[in-house]
Amino acid sequence: MRSHNCGLVDESLIGQTVTLCGWANTRRDHGGVIFIDLRDHEGLVQTVIEPDNQAGFKAAESVRYEFCLRITGTVRARPASQVNERLRTGKIEVVAETVEVLNAAAPLPFMMDDTPGEDVRLKYRYLDIRRPFMQKALRIRTKLTQEIRRFLDARGFQDIETPILTKATPEGARDYLVPSRVHPGEFYALPQSPQLFKQLLMMAGMDRYYQIARCFRDEDLRADRQPEFTQLDMEFAFVEERDVQDTVEDMIRHLFRTVVDVELANPFPRMTYADAMRRYGSDKPDLRIDLELIDVAEAVKHVEFKVFSGPAKDPGGRVACLRVPNGAEMTRKQLDDLGLYVAKYGAKGLAWIRIDDLSKGREGLTSPIVKFLDDQAIDGIFKAVGAQQGDVLFFGAGPYKIVSDFMGALRLKVGKDMGLVANRWAPLWVTDFPMFEYDDEAKRYVALHHPFTVPKIDDIADLKANALTSVSRGYDCVLNGNEIGGGSIRIHRPDMQSAVFDLLGISTEEAELKFGFLLDALKYGAPPHGGIAFGIDRISALMVGTESIRDVIAFPKTASATCLMTSAPSVVPEQQLQELHIRVAKPEKKA
Amino acid sequence: MRSHNCGLVDESLIGQTVTLCGWANTRRDHGGVIFIDLRDHEGLVQTVIEPDNQAGFKAAESVRYEFCLRITGTVRARPASQVNERLRTGKIEVVAETVEVLNAAAPLPFMMDDTPGEDVRLKYRYLDIRRPFMQKALRIRTKLTQEIRRFLDARGFQDIETPILTKATPEGARDYLVPSRVHPGEFYALPQSPQLFKQLLMMAGMDRYYQIARCFRDEDLRADRQPEFTQLDMEFAFVEERDVQDTVEDMIRHLFRTVVDVELANPFPRMTYADAMRRYGSDKPDLRIDLELIDVAEAVKHVEFKVFSGPAKDPGGRVACLRVPNGAEMTRKQLDDLGLYVAKYGAKGLAWIRIDDLSKGREGLTSPIVKFLDDQAIDGIFKAVGAQQGDVLFFGAGPYKIVSDFMGALRLKVGKDMGLVANRWAPLWVTDFPMFEYDDEAKRYVALHHPFTVPKIDDIADLKANALTSVSRGYDCVLNGNEIGGGSIRIHRPDMQSAVFDLLGISTEEAELKFGFLLDALKYGAPPHGGIAFGIDRISALMVGTESIRDVIAFPKTASATCLMTSAPSVVPEQQLQELHIRVAKPEKKA
Repeated sequence: MRSHNCGLVDESLIGQTVTLCGWANTRRDHGGVIFIDLRDHEGLVQTVIEPDNQAGFKAAESVRYEFCLRITGTVRARPASQVNERLRTGKIEVVAETVEVLNAAAPLPFMMDDTPGEDVRLKYRYLDIRRPFMQKALRIRTKLTQEIRRFLDARGFQDIETPILTKATPEGARDYLVPSRVHPGEFYALPQSPQLFKQLLMMAGMDRYYQIARCFRDEDLRADRQPEFTQLDMEFAFVEERDVQDTVEDMIRHLFRTVVDVELANPFPRMTYADAMRRYGSDKPDLRIDLELIDVAEAVKHVEFKVFSGPAKDPGGRVACLRVPNGAEMTRKQLDDLGLYVAKYGAKGLAWIRIDDLSKGREGLTSPIVKFLDDQAIDGIFKAVGAQQGDVLFFGAGPYKIVSDFMGALRLKVGKDMGLVANRWAPLWVTDFPMFEYDDEAKRYVALHHPFTVPKIDDIADLKANALTSVSRGYDCVLNGNEIGGGSIRIHRPDMQSAVFDLLGISTEEAELKFGFLLDALKYGAPPHGGIAFGIDRISALMVGTESIRDVIAFPKTASATCLMTSAPSVVPEQQLQELHIRVAKPEKKA
Repeated sequence: MRSHNCGLVDESLIGQTVTLCGWANTRRDHGGVIFIDLRDHEGLVQTVIEPDNQAGFKAAESVRYEFCLRITGTVRARPASQVNERLRTGKIEVVAETVEVLNAAAPLPFMMDDTPGEDVRLKYRYLDIRRPFMQKALRIRTKLTQEIRRFLDARGFQDIETPILTKATPEGARDYLVPSRVHPGEFYALPQSPQLFKQLLMMAGMDRYYQIARCFRDEDLRADRQPEFTQLDMEFAFVEERDVQDTVEDMIRHLFRTVVDVELANPFPRMTYADAMRRYGSDKPDLRIDLELIDVAEAVKHVEFKVFSGPAKDPGGRVACLRVPNGAEMTRKQLDDLGLYVAKYGAKGLAWIRIDDLSKGREGLTSPIVKFLDDQAIDGIFKAVGAQQGDVLFFGAGPYKIVSDFMGALRLKVGKDMGLVANRWAPLWVTDFPMFEYDDEAKRYVALHHPFTVPKIDDIADLKANALTSVSRGYDCVLNGNEIGGGSIRIHRPDMQSAVFDLLGISTEEAELKFGFLLDALKYGAPPHGGIAFGIDRISALMVGTESIRDVIAFPKTASATCLMTSAPSVVPEQQLQELHIRVAKPEKKA
């Protein structure tokens, strides 16, 4: 139907006849001549319909925004005064011989060069995607997955599909369920990840596996979550941590180089979980922000002020300081607002010292807490953090994890607010995660990674004796403060798997019921294996430079898990439910 | 953990030390020396553990089938008498220095060189896949999808994911449903295909789309069906039939050439639906069988025998003959059995004439019906079909479609039973499908393809007046009697889409409710577009040379939609159902 793409017609075609298909981006009537900018996925080209082309002119007169057209015409040079150097097609125009309206367009719900509200964008997604931003976003995502496959195919990875209709998986989030028609009262679950299947593929001798896999979590949605999401899922047999990490680090560098022409560090920096929490208050530190938490417990152990000295003396406590150069510019209101901000992360308060004039000693400081600190404490703090004129120092004191969390959140907030986020890409590996956390409410251990991650300790008795201090062979890949990938070496010995289930409070019966097939499979010569999974939605969004993963998903859902275009989910006929042996049992309306 | 793959160690490594990981395929004790054939995905290598290697020997003595091992040793030439030319590793062996048991294996549920029953294979799929046949089958499938992507990526197709949690789709089969937790009483449906989304992507200006997409149909399963299956889904904007067909024909040839080294016809033969039904009694004729149906109505219109003359004179009837050379070898029992066989396809009976001796006229014929036919009829039939000595002629008479169907089934059955299936690959296009069929039970038209396929007639009034005789712009790609792909040019005008819904008995309200977003999208300059979808499971099975698509699916389900390995589907806790606002309503047990 066409000979060329609109956006690719250039001066090499002058004098030739071309047939183009696309959409009317604009129509201008100027001096008795009609100009239509015709647009396709490659870009715009200017077409000219002159009045002596009567049929063409008549058709062109009917054209409105987004009419779908086919135009045949001759390419000619534009007058020098009309050349547009920014467009590939800017030196030429197409003088129309025929103008065919392939399809008319009703008045649009929004102007194509606007960015309307997201509800409108999602309802009319088929129009939204015609906009150059979305064309580019989706094409970057396609390029990303192409390059992933190119890289992995060349290295012998097998792209293998695993089931979508499967058994409840143990990733900790809620499963989506699918009632079975053939087996009344029974349900499939949609996978939260292909975790067990990929491990089974290693036991099955497939050696190297990957899949760009759809996963499902019925969680309460936040801005960056979708009920279905896509991960690059990988698994390797006969490997240790570095085998996995080295391969995927090369891959990530390859992806950024080929998709968005960015050269990432080689090698990626590496950091233990303990260091990341200590220095950045986060297990996914954003290294673009050049601020660090400094422990000042030693300087305040002796003070009367129990808010500081209590945690400083407690082995489970922490007194951390964040020094912000030029922070003294902050107003009292801004400082108070930061106090409210960190309260959301569990802070009971946010102490601070503003160093207005370092030469004046105490007189030069503004602070709600400095009165509780003696000179020794202030000297000790200032030395520890290298305090300078114009700094503001923030203090968090309390239980180690809570202080780390809210001071880490503060670091990010202040870094962003003060424009301290460097314009670079900051990847790193975080390693040596704790194997377990103790859940105070449930009164039991929970797995920090998942129950199939192997501990560094080989000995089961040792592990049981040191559960809370033992670390796992898990690792996360972090980029610009986002956890873009997470993986581990897996348990391949059945006795270790049973021991970990046991520590997690999973009874033998429950383990058998839920994971019997895994425990069986481990009995038949399961190889050592490990892997990783990367979030394709997030990596795409980072590459596109958008905050929202919805911009890199063709048909995303809203925060209430609705598709505004198709109106899914929706009510279904009663008969369909009967066939599936279920009934709706709505929650009772509150009186 | 390893320096080389087992199956790739050859004489170029003689004298070198290698570290290999894999499974014990066999262990033989011979003359005080232990031989272990170690296997990985690349193949086998013979390792030798000599008794003076005390630690290694002790470890090797414990080895049983499928123990997972790491062996380090030196490659040496085998004695000439032990060279195995069929193995890449057949000229060498590895003299072990260390033998490490990475994991033991319990006694196996089956021997790895057996092919156990499918139930056992599926329950222990992780062992089944270790067998060379399954390794090869899954790797061929991976190679197939790699080559699909390579071909389409190079041609500008965008690989775009469409939702799995979506709205009920209109493909005619039952949907799998997913209850919504957030929206009580509402349900998502799993897609039967991405049909509407891919059309919307064309309206959204994505131009060329593909996806290797998971699809779901809750149908009663047959041997070659799975509740979830995979299709290569494609769509093109601004195209006509031949644009789609030419591209994908090139692709299919590329796939067979690169994956299984088969050169398919160029171009593929083309046949209308009407011709395919007339000549082969099938819309997916297996052209490897060199038998055709011949219409003999003209020869029998005049006879008294109403079984023949009735349909012969009826415009909606058919009298068809299948001539089978050397069919006269068939026994009476075999001929009777064929009668029973075609009864399953709707035949009321199967008439036949066996030509035992052509020179003897009637005397040389054996037949239950020849007594009802005069010489003129017999002559006419024999001329029409080119009857020869030793033939058997089968006759079907009755309504056109029924006769075509059972005679088509007979053709396949006889062709296979008599070894008449040529050892070649027979692709073709079938085109010009009827737009509608009339469903006598439902008293309405049904779409032969789907309701989005455009008719060849542009005029809506014409279409309404000639619904039953109008043909669509649909096309199927057939290979060796399998429909491997099906597609069409789609409706892009909103008035035509509404007219087709109307003809299908879909009310304006129902159309709005189910397809409102499509009808809306068509209003905003939808481009002409078309596409196709190919069954990846079936194409993989054809390439592997297996009858069962389960052999090319890593974790398939049984005919009752069960996963024998994980026991999905399964019962879930009541609380989970409460969260989803549903209750189980089992069918009442029969008293």
